[in-house]
Amino acid sequence: MRTDHGYDVISIGAHPDDVEVGTGGVLLRMAQQGYRVGIIYLTKGEMGTGGTPEIRAQEALKAAQILKADLLATLDFGDTKVVDTPEHRYVVAELIRKYRPRILLAPWMRGGHGKRGSHADHLAAGNIVTNACYYATFKKLPIKGDPYPVPALFHYFLPLEDPPTFVVDITDQFDDWMAALKAHASQFLNPEKMKHRDYIWNLETMARNYGNMIGVKYGQGFKIGEPLRVSDLTDLVKFQP
Amino acid sequence: MRTDHGYDVISIGAHPDDVEVGTGGVLLRMAQQGYRVGIIYLTKGEMGTGGTPEIRAQEALKAAQILKADLLATLDFGDTKVVDTPEHRYVVAELIRKYRPRILLAPWMRGGHGKRGSHADHLAAGNIVTNACYYATFKKLPIKGDPYPVPALFHYFLPLEDPPTFVVDITDQFDDWMAALKAHASQFLNPEKMKHRDYIWNLETMARNYGNMIGVKYGQGFKIGEPLRVSDLTDLVKFQP
Amino acid sequence: MRTDHGYDVISIGAHPDDVEVGTGGVLLRMAQQGYRVGIIYLTKGEMGTGGTPEIRAQEALKAAQILKADLLATLDFGDTKVVDTPEHRYVVAELIRKYRPRILLAPWMRGGHGKRGSHADHLAAGNIVTNACYYATFKKLPIKGDPYPVPALFHYFLPLEDPPTFVVDITDQFDDWMAALKAHASQFLNPEKMKHRDYIWNLETMARNYGNMIGVKYGQGFKIGEPLRVSDLTDLVKFQP
Amino acid sequence: MRTDHGYDVISIGAHPDDVEVGTGGVLLRMAQQGYRVGIIYLTKGEMGTGGTPEIRAQEALKAAQILKADLLATLDFGDTKVVDTPEHRYVVAELIRKYRPRILLAPWMRGGHGKRGSHADHLAAGNIVTNACYYATFKKLPIKGDPYPVPALFHYFLPLEDPPTFVVDITDQFDDWMAALKAHASQFLNPEKMKHRDYIWNLETMARNYGNMIGVKYGQGFKIGEPLRVSDLTDLVKFQP
Amino acid sequence: MRTDHGYDVISIGAHPDDVEVGTGGVLLRMAQQGYRVGIIYLTKGEMGTGGTPEIRAQEALKAAQILKADLLATLDFGDTKVVDTPEHRYVVAELIRKYRPRILLAPWMRGGHGKRGSHADHLAAGNIVTNACYYATFKKLPIKGDPYPVPALFHYFLPLEDPPTFVVDITDQFDDWMAALKAHASQFLNPEKMKHRDYIWNLETMARNYGNMIGVKYGQGFKIGEPLRVSDLTDLVKFQP
Amino acid sequence: MRTDHGYDVISIGAHPDDVEVGTGGVLLRMAQQGYRVGIIYLTKGEMGTGGTPEIRAQEALKAAQILKADLLATLDFGDTKVVDTPEHRYVVAELIRKYRPRILLAPWMRGGHGKRGSHADHLAAGNIVTNACYYATFKKLPIKGDPYPVPALFHYFLPLEDPPTFVVDITDQFDDWMAALKAHASQFLNPEKMKHRDYIWNLETMARNYGNMIGVKYGQGFKIGEPLRVSDLTDLVKFQP
Repeated sequence: MRTDHGYDVISIGAHPDDVEVGTGGVLLRMAQQGYRVGIIYLTKGEMGTGGTPEIRAQEALKAAQILKADLLATLDFGDTKVVDTPEHRYVVAELIRKYRPRILLAPWMRGGHGKRGSHADHLAAGNIVTNACYYATFKKLPIKGDPYPVPALFHYFLPLEDPPTFVVDITDQFDDWMAALKAHASQFLNPEKMKHRDYIWNLETMARNYGNMIGVKYGQGFKIGEPLRVSDLTDLVKFQP
Repeated sequence: MRTDHGYDVISIGAHPDDVEVGTGGVLLRMAQQGYRVGIIYLTKGEMGTGGTPEIRAQEALKAAQILKADLLATLDFGDTKVVDTPEHRYVVAELIRKYRPRILLAPWMRGGHGKRGSHADHLAAGNIVTNACYYATFKKLPIKGDPYPVPALFHYFLPLEDPPTFVVDITDQFDDWMAALKAHASQFLNPEKMKHRDYIWNLETMARNYGNMIGVKYGQGFKIGEPLRVSDLTDLVKFQP
Repeated sequence: MRTDHGYDVISIGAHPDDVEVGTGGVLLRMAQQGYRVGIIYLTKGEMGTGGTPEIRAQEALKAAQILKADLLATLDFGDTKVVDTPEHRYVVAELIRKYRPRILLAPWMRGGHGKRGSHADHLAAGNIVTNACYYATFKKLPIKGDPYPVPALFHYFLPLEDPPTFVVDITDQFDDWMAALKAHASQFLNPEKMKHRDYIWNLETMARNYGNMIGVKYGQGFKIGEPLRVSDLTDLVKFQP
Repeated sequence: MRTDHGYDVISIGAHPDDVEVGTGGVLLRMAQQGYRVGIIYLTKGEMGTGGTPEIRAQEALKAAQILKADLLATLDFGDTKVVDTPEHRYVVAELIRKYRPRILLAPWMRGGHGKRGSHADHLAAGNIVTNACYYATFKKLPIKGDPYPVPALFHYFLPLEDPPTFVVDITDQFDDWMAALKAHASQFLNPEKMKHRDYIWNLETMARNYGNMIGVKYGQGFKIGEPLRVSDLTDLVKFQP
Repeated sequence: MRTDHGYDVISIGAHPDDVEVGTGGVLLRMAQQGYRVGIIYLTKGEMGTGGTPEIRAQEALKAAQILKADLLATLDFGDTKVVDTPEHRYVVAELIRKYRPRILLAPWMRGGHGKRGSHADHLAAGNIVTNACYYATFKKLPIKGDPYPVPALFHYFLPLEDPPTFVVDITDQFDDWMAALKAHASQFLNPEKMKHRDYIWNLETMARNYGNMIGVKYGQGFKIGEPLRVSDLTDLVKFQP
Repeated sequence: MRTDHGYDVISIGAHPDDVEVGTGGVLLRMAQQGYRVGIIYLTKGEMGTGGTPEIRAQEALKAAQILKADLLATLDFGDTKVVDTPEHRYVVAELIRKYRPRILLAPWMRGGHGKRGSHADHLAAGNIVTNACYYATFKKLPIKGDPYPVPALFHYFLPLEDPPTFVVDITDQFDDWMAALKAHASQFLNPEKMKHRDYIWNLETMARNYGNMIGVKYGQGFKIGEPLRVSDLTDLVKFQP
């Protein structure tokens, strides 16, 4: 089931744990299906209320092992300081050329609004990755590697008013996904943070809600920004909830 | 490639030629792929400026032959009088139970606005079919046949502001699709009507525009009203334009 | 400045006073510019809290005189009972053929929502007129008159979230427009109704708000449902606020 | 805490169980807070796959008792045949005048789209109630009772792309709400229907998802179609999640 | 009526007079209700056509006195140069920790489009404040003060297509609000600027239009980006227009 | 037909060929109508896969000659590095003051999303020009020239879900427009690039699709961000498709 691409899927997030929250169940499912899976964080998450960069790196490693990812890379764009600059796009474009993923996952770049809306780093990460996909095809860009067009880019972390284009069934991966989230103990099992919010309940609910949309117990939802190209209409029947 | 369903796809339109315009290339492609294809009109198109019900029935038959459809049914809801009533939903639900299509195609029910916006019959047809899909599953409905849940419903005739969820490549079917459209000579090759509008040019342009969206020469676009259910993320890669 | 059309503009509303509220200033402006102006109500407004059909007919006549309309027609579709049926579309299509307006004005058919949202009659009126425009071109329709394509259809009564495509400056017509509104004394100067709402203040505010959008004192706003066709780009400069 | 209105809140749905699913937790909460609560169904639900009109009436009664409603009325507009006609609006307007609710709850009238989109009866119910609210104020309407303006109308059954304006915390009512839903055993505990879908899991998920939006365990979401009128800005602080 | 927070409300704008235009009536109303009110400008407005930084500072002081604000702070992010950088977010987050407002008011960050659309500084101000609200809760951020979650963030300066979530009645404050606006004489009573536009008329119209939406004479409108959390449904009745 | 403005229209794009693709037919039409036409690129397009800055400059010159533009200016904001900074806005504002265009054309700043969505440079260009239009009116800005309000700003490069406000008929200019596009041989006739995409077919299709919207063979579409100001309603009739 492996392909000539370096990676079948790479999921990119702004901070350690973003990737796991938004795409963890899907990554594990893909790994179980025999695909090669990678994770990239744009920052070390050093401004997170819980943990330290060192603790978070260990937690991320543990989570990545549970999710069976065989790439875990962490950039240092600066927590709370992720901005969609040309330079950041170049860095990610170079990684795209290096890892040649068939599928990229990244936060949606038009996040929710409001007081507890999307972290600015998430929106910036979505923009950086989207632009980097495009830039990775420019042969004259002053970066290493051969031009590479990413075949598919899907977005996670969708705001309330933006229903997903598709939902992946992660029912069979749910328990391990939960374990991967709990590996980020400084974030989701942190007594100080849990005073205000029951993260595990929230995350479980999110997966149930996406599952509901397609008639399964647990799911993770994604947005595609372009029409699909279909050759055989009946191919779509199996995707009908 | 046949299934236990009666039909693989049935395309429903308000008037003879609606089905051909919005879905003809796709129907032919499916027939060529070995699927069983049907066409249902809700009216005889008796108010159309060109043709008569008899002429239009002959034209429709010719078009259906070109498109290799093995069902051509015409209801009599009344041209310019198609309304989304419970009774009309019952009639279509009964047909759904009879033909048991895996896929239904119908006009989008929130058509464009403006002076030359959607014909009211098209919007009504979209609503009737959508509701009939649901009603076909109600076992107590006073209609014949066993309850049947249509696996997939896709919509054509999308207004400008509503881009398609997916586009089907009809490049190889383009010439025959054109022939099927020209079979409706009273509509598209009618000198009286062509004084105001070059229908063939318009229809060809529509197919080119949809093709453009997915990187092929000709296409037909459709909207899905619900998230897709995905089991293997790489299944979606082949759908990427 | 007259044309070979019967009327330059006809404004259609569900009840006496709708046309005046949404389009009165524009009608007067057109009349002053030498155009031929007509008004059609779909009902007598017999369910209005103020007035009686007789009183309202007199008020409407007075308003029409102030606005210099030379057509005032009242249909009897039934106040609170206006529904977008094929039969109602036929009636209006026949009137369109009879009066041959260059421009039709009608309520927007996707009104506001909420407890004090659009009166159902207004939305139905918008749908009837839009469909009638289309139907008026069908030569086989069982109605009198020659097929006639209405050159332009614009919509008034726009909900909050729907900004106008264009606003007509009615600053010079404002005083007479106010007089025409006050002619509908049973509606806008009715002490019983004014206990709850100062209609004149509201209507004046509406005109000020539209005026604000284009940099004049008073205006009336309209929506166009289709792209404009432009031959000389500088034609649009004069429309820039 | 009682007021001079007949009822503090009346929730209207198309079929027995709609009201419970969309608003049950809120109704119970209000009853527990000392308010007077009513339920009206527009049909007997005779086309539902599970149950009979008699069984459903008994289930509804049991549910209403659990939710402490002191009004349970069932109209007979016809299951699968609910249409927004002037006559239906009159019937509901008359009930509004009779029960004089401070708050009305009704389905949202622009439901989801797609194969499993909103039941046509739900959308029609939303339209009927919205229009009836307006019509109830018209003194000349040929119906009984004094004109009555409903102070507040809120909508439930929101499609995916329509986030709620507000969510009511029903955490303390969750268990009883579940009991009320299970009282509709022919619908939600029906082995035949449960082969395809685990209704209780779905409904619980829906409540968890709404709860998530405001930082509580369980909630029910509603939409308001108009701006709120605020006198003291700090009043809104307590509504902040 | 005072609370343990430092300020009940702080309104933030890009330039002197933005706060007054968008929120002045509300600030005064709150001050009259006994709340503690503050104003922060992100720039001195040195690029404004009228006035100088010194003159504008004096005008702002006068306006603040009329509005009974007891905080008037002016940052120096640079007029026409306000950009949503991490550093600017830090500065505002530090102020949030210092003043501990219960409510923050800021421009909406998705402004109108078009030639006379939102000043880029306004959009940037909206983004900076929204992100700063979030950042103020991060204890590791390299800024002074204890983490502080702002209970409520509301947005002003809404584009045409974005109706307000709520409108505050400022009828009783209208005259003083006008006086506060006129205190910015270099902006709104400047003969050079008034050649092109009657600012006072425009601002009065804006308040009338918002008032219209809730059935009062004058109002100011705001947007909330998240669902409200409701405990007692009847709490919302008093907010119904 | 010339006016007291320096230029009747100036079209601004991020890279050589953007202006031609989105607005070339319109520019030629205007030149043929006797108007003075200019072109400004914000970058040299040095990162384009085809050509070199020198080759592209020559191609651009040739295209400009075909389109009869009498201004061709190229800035150096950096290909793939165009960002909406205050400094870039100043540069463009200074050019606006220098050339005093009656009409500015610029990319739409809310481009499409998705893997092959808008080049980040296009969106940035749209924002820079929109803000520069505003900034050009600020007399205190540290740039040369007298304040100048651009009468009209229209946007090209519209994403799928954003239909145009107006379309310009370029049927008579189509052949020359094609020639101008082919002058950019390194981009559109480049064998290396054409392996993946038939640019000429795509561009022709785009023009046919816009033409379709207004009932002509070829067109180019634009968006206006504000309501039009209308004095004579019949002026709009000639714009009706």
